[in-house]
Amino acid sequence: MTLIQQAPLAAPRPRDDSPRDQAVLIVHGADRTGIVAAVGSVLSKHGANIVSLDQYSDNPHGGAFFQRTVFSLDGLKAALPEIENDLRTEMDRGFDLEFTLRDLSKPQRVAIFASKEDHCLLDLLWRHRRGELPISVSMVISNHTETADEVRSFGIPFFHVPSPAGPDKSAAEAQHLQLLRGNVDFVVLARYMQILSGRFIKELAVPIINIHHSFLPAFIGAGPYAKAKQRGVKLIGATAHYVTEDLDEGPIIEQDVVRVTHAETVADLQRRGADVERAVLSRAVRWHSEDRVIRHDNHTIVFA
Amino acid sequence: MTLIQQAPLAAPRPRDDSPRDQAVLIVHGADRTGIVAAVGSVLSKHGANIVSLDQYSDNPHGGAFFQRTVFSLDGLKAALPEIENDLRTEMDRGFDLEFTLRDLSKPQRVAIFASKEDHCLLDLLWRHRRGELPISVSMVISNHTETADEVRSFGIPFFHVPSPAGPDKSAAEAQHLQLLRGNVDFVVLARYMQILSGRFIKELAVPIINIHHSFLPAFIGAGPYAKAKQRGVKLIGATAHYVTEDLDEGPIIEQDVVRVTHAETVADLQRRGADVERAVLSRAVRWHSEDRVIRHDNHTIVFA
Amino acid sequence: MTLIQQAPLAAPRPRDDSPRDQAVLIVHGADRTGIVAAVGSVLSKHGANIVSLDQYSDNPHGGAFFQRTVFSLDGLKAALPEIENDLRTEMDRGFDLEFTLRDLSKPQRVAIFASKEDHCLLDLLWRHRRGELPISVSMVISNHTETADEVRSFGIPFFHVPSPAGPDKSAAEAQHLQLLRGNVDFVVLARYMQILSGRFIKELAVPIINIHHSFLPAFIGAGPYAKAKQRGVKLIGATAHYVTEDLDEGPIIEQDVVRVTHAETVADLQRRGADVERAVLSRAVRWHSEDRVIRHDNHTIVFA
Amino acid sequence: MTLIQQAPLAAPRPRDDSPRDQAVLIVHGADRTGIVAAVGSVLSKHGANIVSLDQYSDNPHGGAFFQRTVFSLDGLKAALPEIENDLRTEMDRGFDLEFTLRDLSKPQRVAIFASKEDHCLLDLLWRHRRGELPISVSMVISNHTETADEVRSFGIPFFHVPSPAGPDKSAAEAQHLQLLRGNVDFVVLARYMQILSGRFIKELAVPIINIHHSFLPAFIGAGPYAKAKQRGVKLIGATAHYVTEDLDEGPIIEQDVVRVTHAETVADLQRRGADVERAVLSRAVRWHSEDRVIRHDNHTIVFA
Repeated sequence: MTLIQQAPLAAPRPRDDSPRDQAVLIVHGADRTGIVAAVGSVLSKHGANIVSLDQYSDNPHGGAFFQRTVFSLDGLKAALPEIENDLRTEMDRGFDLEFTLRDLSKPQRVAIFASKEDHCLLDLLWRHRRGELPISVSMVISNHTETADEVRSFGIPFFHVPSPAGPDKSAAEAQHLQLLRGNVDFVVLARYMQILSGRFIKELAVPIINIHHSFLPAFIGAGPYAKAKQRGVKLIGATAHYVTEDLDEGPIIEQDVVRVTHAETVADLQRRGADVERAVLSRAVRWHSEDRVIRHDNHTIVFA
Repeated sequence: MTLIQQAPLAAPRPRDDSPRDQAVLIVHGADRTGIVAAVGSVLSKHGANIVSLDQYSDNPHGGAFFQRTVFSLDGLKAALPEIENDLRTEMDRGFDLEFTLRDLSKPQRVAIFASKEDHCLLDLLWRHRRGELPISVSMVISNHTETADEVRSFGIPFFHVPSPAGPDKSAAEAQHLQLLRGNVDFVVLARYMQILSGRFIKELAVPIINIHHSFLPAFIGAGPYAKAKQRGVKLIGATAHYVTEDLDEGPIIEQDVVRVTHAETVADLQRRGADVERAVLSRAVRWHSEDRVIRHDNHTIVFA
Repeated sequence: MTLIQQAPLAAPRPRDDSPRDQAVLIVHGADRTGIVAAVGSVLSKHGANIVSLDQYSDNPHGGAFFQRTVFSLDGLKAALPEIENDLRTEMDRGFDLEFTLRDLSKPQRVAIFASKEDHCLLDLLWRHRRGELPISVSMVISNHTETADEVRSFGIPFFHVPSPAGPDKSAAEAQHLQLLRGNVDFVVLARYMQILSGRFIKELAVPIINIHHSFLPAFIGAGPYAKAKQRGVKLIGATAHYVTEDLDEGPIIEQDVVRVTHAETVADLQRRGADVERAVLSRAVRWHSEDRVIRHDNHTIVFA
Repeated sequence: MTLIQQAPLAAPRPRDDSPRDQAVLIVHGADRTGIVAAVGSVLSKHGANIVSLDQYSDNPHGGAFFQRTVFSLDGLKAALPEIENDLRTEMDRGFDLEFTLRDLSKPQRVAIFASKEDHCLLDLLWRHRRGELPISVSMVISNHTETADEVRSFGIPFFHVPSPAGPDKSAAEAQHLQLLRGNVDFVVLARYMQILSGRFIKELAVPIINIHHSFLPAFIGAGPYAKAKQRGVKLIGATAHYVTEDLDEGPIIEQDVVRVTHAETVADLQRRGADVERAVLSRAVRWHSEDRVIRHDNHTIVFA
């Protein structure tokens, strides 16, 4: 039965605006006169057409500089190594900058971690199938089995890795690393509800995005909807952030809220909040997968 | 010069929908079968027509019950004492309820406390002049003089009560009490930026509404916009709440937020936040002045 | 294969707050003194406890009156006929009112019409499975087959009724009536994209809710996202409304919008709008299924 | 009396972030490879530091191109003519582009037209005094006298130009032109409520921004709140747009909405809408005055 259900109900639709022959270039480092011109010259020399350019400097007099450039070029794949070379040469001429260059036709590979709750997980899988997310979902990992059949109905591998009670998650994390290493470009915790060890985060060495079910920094930790009810807030929210060793303290990618009233129970808040969570997480995943989010100290620059 | 400027530039316009011959009845206490019928019968007996009725029970099986009823009645003023009597008789027949009854043609008297910042203060005065707030502004008290002329141009008394540095505010608070006692039904802190002592709150014995410049419980205390920038949040907000002895911990009346980006400075957040603050505070003041807010434990029931 | 996939992946979860022994009473008609007391007395006499009461009068001096009351009562089912009798007796004593009384433990039966687009359809089915919508989905009818397997995976019958080109839809509508008659309490058009004839609407004789992909009355008719792009609006929206003979002119139940920029293409607007559509439609369906929406002339009273 | 009241209550505060030695460069025209590099080179050659750069192309394969660049340069004023020369030389080398260059230390001069309603007018004057708007308010023109004293209390000239009934506004418009010609860089209609003739718009020859009290294109023309109530919409809005000969059809700069319910009267909608109007108009004025808005066909590119 499971085998048959693994046949996906529908294949992901091609995106109408799938970015063929487009690349994204992220440049960041110390701000200095001439960066935009230098980068522009390299791209112009190769005949690349700039599709979009976003730039931010946190202090025009010697602060940090961030630039995201999307460019299109016929025969991109062949030209990329040379463009990279020229950019490196240019950067070495006195700029204190780092850059990354990525072919946008290659979607980033993602693993989604989930628990029993399906709303964030299914929303991502459904948006992916609709062609809304430029990602390739490599696998879903869960400490429960409730969502297995549904995940497989999307044609995506599901792995059950139990997470035994108690603080020592090393056995489960070892299995996670075995599954993930080399296979994913980033990880999404879609209401996984388990704390990851600092060691795991370090060894995994790819970005991890979490959705927290409150407007951080309000209601850090467990049970935020009950805490929100207790405090009598008039808005509840959700926060997508990068995971760091400090629980709920990582750089925030996106947040949103919804209005609630005194008449709503904790169960109502959970239901209303679930809609905010899946909306916020899907935006964060889309922006990350399109290299729209740059981490800087404990902040994010989001070129949305 | 000051005398002439005290002549108001324009008198408050009469509200088109000013509630003549209308009263508001608040009933709250232990939920029990028959409350709605009992209240309805008393009003019906006096020929009162129910204009609006809001009801909330936090647990239909024996929780707390809250009802706000607005009714109209020709010759209201004369009938009110008898209605009050009948309600008391009805309540004494086995209901564990309290009620308040107020003639809506008599606006509540308010004192506004301000400091140097004018945005919340002017917004309230301007809305009052427009006829948007069913209040009578008895006075403005400030620990600074910057807003004196502008306040007086609205025809409203301005009192300057300096608040000397240091934790002991007793001299200033004694002056405040002298000005306020018997003269106001509630007090609004329109970015007053001074902590009130528990003793003052107790002796004043009228509700005090504060506007805090963050989405509570995030960023309690001073400098919330700087803290918000530091944490990298994507929304900033404001919270109107009743003042209690515990700083920023009183019952929340209203909150709202606005979206911000990485590119906005602390000064930008302050400017953007000021718009949220004045909107949130004016809603809280309007709802309070129309008896739409009921305090219960550390929460509010808001029949907006 | 299809047979196996028809086995639902998961049964709808019971709602934690499923309203056992609760009924909803809607009263509307000409406003008059004493209605609230009269209704309250009948309920009180039967020992019913009022869980929530919403009331609205469009003109306290002789306008139209609307009241929604939810009450709980042990042994509700047995008591309902007698309560109905007593209410009728009371209403006949000089009130010009109509009322409906419904046992909330019996979910309303719904048919969902869909076309190729799955976002509104799947959102409703998923929310239903989660226990968020107090409905029973009797069937899905589509003029296309794309969503058949997915619908059946929820355990719900799917019927394919082609809608041939041209204005004459009478053959298809005859099939629709055959499927629907006696089987549904209301119908939802989840981006069905076909115009229903006045005759069909009349013969079906149950409420029909449509989701229009614009903020009505802007962009009536086909292609609203293209029209929105052309006009250069800064917000796009969606509208859930009851279907009448006049296209996109029926009473509006719910609307919402989302901010867009010049940089977004028509395809972007469609993607962003799809999220608004499914949110708006699901709210409208929930409110309708809980008898929170009362039609009056071409308006709705929504006790949300 | 009036003379004394003309003394402004407070002078505009200097903006903390007033852009000294900064200029804004707008480039638009046919998209082509190399524009960003060419512009960047000119700026870099003069030692200018790019503070922010926004770029948009409506079609990377030969569409229209728009770029807004803010740069800082010590001794800007002296260098501007040469930069302009170099840019012109660069543009003449095969780019089909136009550009404008403006010293940001010189605020744009504005005339505000108002009628009896003061909410949009006062909001602009108050924001200007707070230092939120980089404009110089040259004058206020009104067809009524109600706001004269209040305007003059801000230290701003007020001119009363009656607008007689009937379609022929040529006498009033002649007076307007006499007052405005050579004195203003743009005009704001802050709920002026009079239609401008095509001839006046043409002769004035500066941009005119209007605030319309609905979410355009819904409810074009007079009485939009009454129309909104009639249609039963669940959101009401406001639209700031450039004025063209076609009433309410000009390019939209900004829009926003607020949620309303069946219980709100037309007067309520007007009150709620007034808050949206002043917020939307102030954003539009700020963006326009910072050269963030580019008109293209009947659209706007807004680099907010």
